[in-house]
Amino acid sequence: MRELPAGHPLQVGRTSASPLVTTYQGVRGDSTPVWFMRQAGRSLPEYRDLRVGTEMLDACLNPEMASEITLQPVRRHGVDAAIFFSDIVVPMKLAGVDVSIVPGRGPVLGNPVRTAQDVRDLPTLDEAALAPISEAVALTVAALGDTPLIGFAGAPFTLAAYLVEGGPSKDHLAARTLMHSDPDAWAELMQWTATITGAFLRAQILAGASAAQLFDSWAGALSLADYTSKVAPASALALSRVHGLTYGGDEAGGGAGAAGTRAVGTESAAPGAHGDTATTNPTRTVPIVHFGVGTGELLKAMHDVGADVVGVDYRIPLDEASRRLGGTVTLQGNIDPALLAAPWPVLEAHVLDVLARGKSAPAHVLNLGHGVPPETDPAVLTRLVEFVHAQN
Amino acid sequence: MRELPAGHPLQVGRTSASPLVTTYQGVRGDSTPVWFMRQAGRSLPEYRDLRVGTEMLDACLNPEMASEITLQPVRRHGVDAAIFFSDIVVPMKLAGVDVSIVPGRGPVLGNPVRTAQDVRDLPTLDEAALAPISEAVALTVAALGDTPLIGFAGAPFTLAAYLVEGGPSKDHLAARTLMHSDPDAWAELMQWTATITGAFLRAQILAGASAAQLFDSWAGALSLADYTSKVAPASALALSRVHGLTYGGDEAGGGAGAAGTRAVGTESAAPGAHGDTATTNPTRTVPIVHFGVGTGELLKAMHDVGADVVGVDYRIPLDEASRRLGGTVTLQGNIDPALLAAPWPVLEAHVLDVLARGKSAPAHVLNLGHGVPPETDPAVLTRLVEFVHAQN
Repeated sequence: MRELPAGHPLQVGRTSASPLVTTYQGVRGDSTPVWFMRQAGRSLPEYRDLRVGTEMLDACLNPEMASEITLQPVRRHGVDAAIFFSDIVVPMKLAGVDVSIVPGRGPVLGNPVRTAQDVRDLPTLDEAALAPISEAVALTVAALGDTPLIGFAGAPFTLAAYLVEGGPSKDHLAARTLMHSDPDAWAELMQWTATITGAFLRAQILAGASAAQLFDSWAGALSLADYTSKVAPASALALSRVHGLTYGGDEAGGGAGAAGTRAVGTESAAPGAHGDTATTNPTRTVPIVHFGVGTGELLKAMHDVGADVVGVDYRIPLDEASRRLGGTVTLQGNIDPALLAAPWPVLEAHVLDVLARGKSAPAHVLNLGHGVPPETDPAVLTRLVEFVHAQN
Repeated sequence: MRELPAGHPLQVGRTSASPLVTTYQGVRGDSTPVWFMRQAGRSLPEYRDLRVGTEMLDACLNPEMASEITLQPVRRHGVDAAIFFSDIVVPMKLAGVDVSIVPGRGPVLGNPVRTAQDVRDLPTLDEAALAPISEAVALTVAALGDTPLIGFAGAPFTLAAYLVEGGPSKDHLAARTLMHSDPDAWAELMQWTATITGAFLRAQILAGASAAQLFDSWAGALSLADYTSKVAPASALALSRVHGLTYGGDEAGGGAGAAGTRAVGTESAAPGAHGDTATTNPTRTVPIVHFGVGTGELLKAMHDVGADVVGVDYRIPLDEASRRLGGTVTLQGNIDPALLAAPWPVLEAHVLDVLARGKSAPAHVLNLGHGVPPETDPAVLTRLVEFVHAQN
């Protein structure tokens, strides 16, 4: 196929027929698409070389560097999607919150949010501050051709957990305590995190991302009752900012190399209505994936906030996940990252088991059940992609 | 009631009719017994005063200090049981493993166990080294009178996770990787941890503990398949060391103040057979509680390794936990520790909900769904005990 100039609208338009996007839309293809959470970053030597001397958040906010890091695993592994290289706390940083990422520890807040006044004192995100994100996404989709880019954002609860804890935490007790001890402050905090992270994800789609994944990394710390009443409304609010956005198709129906006009990230006539209005063509609405760790009890609730695809960690098998979702929801997952260091026959048997169980869902995108561990041998990931693509 | 001299066997014998022990045996009393995981320790000012200048593992191995710390919350809160103050890594330490507890971080190993050779190099536990534990337990039960002492031990997987990771970890990836990359080394490691932790728990019962709780703190990181095939056999092996041990009853049937002969921690004629032989009187077999965090998917498997009572964290309600256990298993739990800092009416409503849902099980001991947070106001715990005792 002839190469189009970088940034040509048709290049982005091609993703509408890509295995990833069509599978996210519930259509099974000849083979199962595959990408890896945290594929961009710490497991790749070319990433470690590039990052020397640059702090994590500075790398996220440097459009050329963020784009290059996003592209590295696509070049190396031949995965079916790029995932935008960023961090959950980036929209907080852009809003003016004092946050940094401490190597080996994670995000650390200068002033944890513990009171109603702390919540009221949170700064407002000027959406113009998202320019470096839009620029990085535009650079990336121009270079990706017909490989789709997945936008990235943390869910409101996970952002709130960092804000309240002031840093990483095992049980997110301070956040869960605020939830119950001051429900009004909690609601206001969730509204704030939903607003900034919704804007962050929206900017990525408007700049050309073909899909979006909301990471509620710590939702597994919650009971279903707390998730439903104290968290889900904010996740739905964040996703309402990206519902109704359309991506990479042309009016004639799109497809690889198809001609047509396209505005990157246009809005449908009914923004906020999720795939159920006459003016929104569901085949061109940006598909949304929702993922959390240890969320076997929450899968249905996490779907119900407005996701198209549910990501499943490694703790429950995909056939059980599909059963809990009524057998009608496309799944993503769920290779156990611990198996990446096992002898190949052990990993291969696990992959075949995951693929077989994934058949119980309408469609399935293979992924890990958690991020790529830093010490993973990249060659194993490359081999895994080839192996998955060779299966039916 | 006349006070018996400290250490008199009858004093220990009284616990057979205690609300805790009878409830653990599946008999509902007039009110619900209550104790708190981590009630002994960091939330109490008298504990913090006592610990000044003494390292954690030194405190655990000083019989007078360990006993005093164990007794403090019983005096203060009027809970229905003492839980032996110790740490999951104590049996490793007594076996000669280089382990220390770093304040604010947790257990840290001098030499993490990563290879088959590392496993073979693990030292053998000389059970004579458990003398300070037996002494602390004996001092404690002598002082407790008719309040039962619950023995404490970590489950083999949780010990193995610390040994392999070399310290605390969020996802226990190194341990779960070894499990799959070298199954033989893993099996040998689990046999080793089962042996030392089984001996640790057994010593506590022989010295007078009336019940035992096995903490598999990190089992929630496992899929059911991995738990069942790679972990459960070792947990069963550890518990086989305490099955068939009898406690605090006299031959005539026991009861508060009842006379009779008693050998503390005698073995039944059929050690290893769990409550299903003619020679073991189930009303005098030491009841075993099994608890883990985030183990909603594993409850039945955790019961099946040989537990009498299953502890439930705060993530799923007790009626759902009881349903998963077939409605026949006594439960312990499951107040959300995050609610301890909420206004009293919020906590009270939560407690009443937990008590109501606990009625779906044959019997129920109230506890938290995780340990007492360090910053908990002790007065809230005291009030909670009074409140629970006042309910029917």
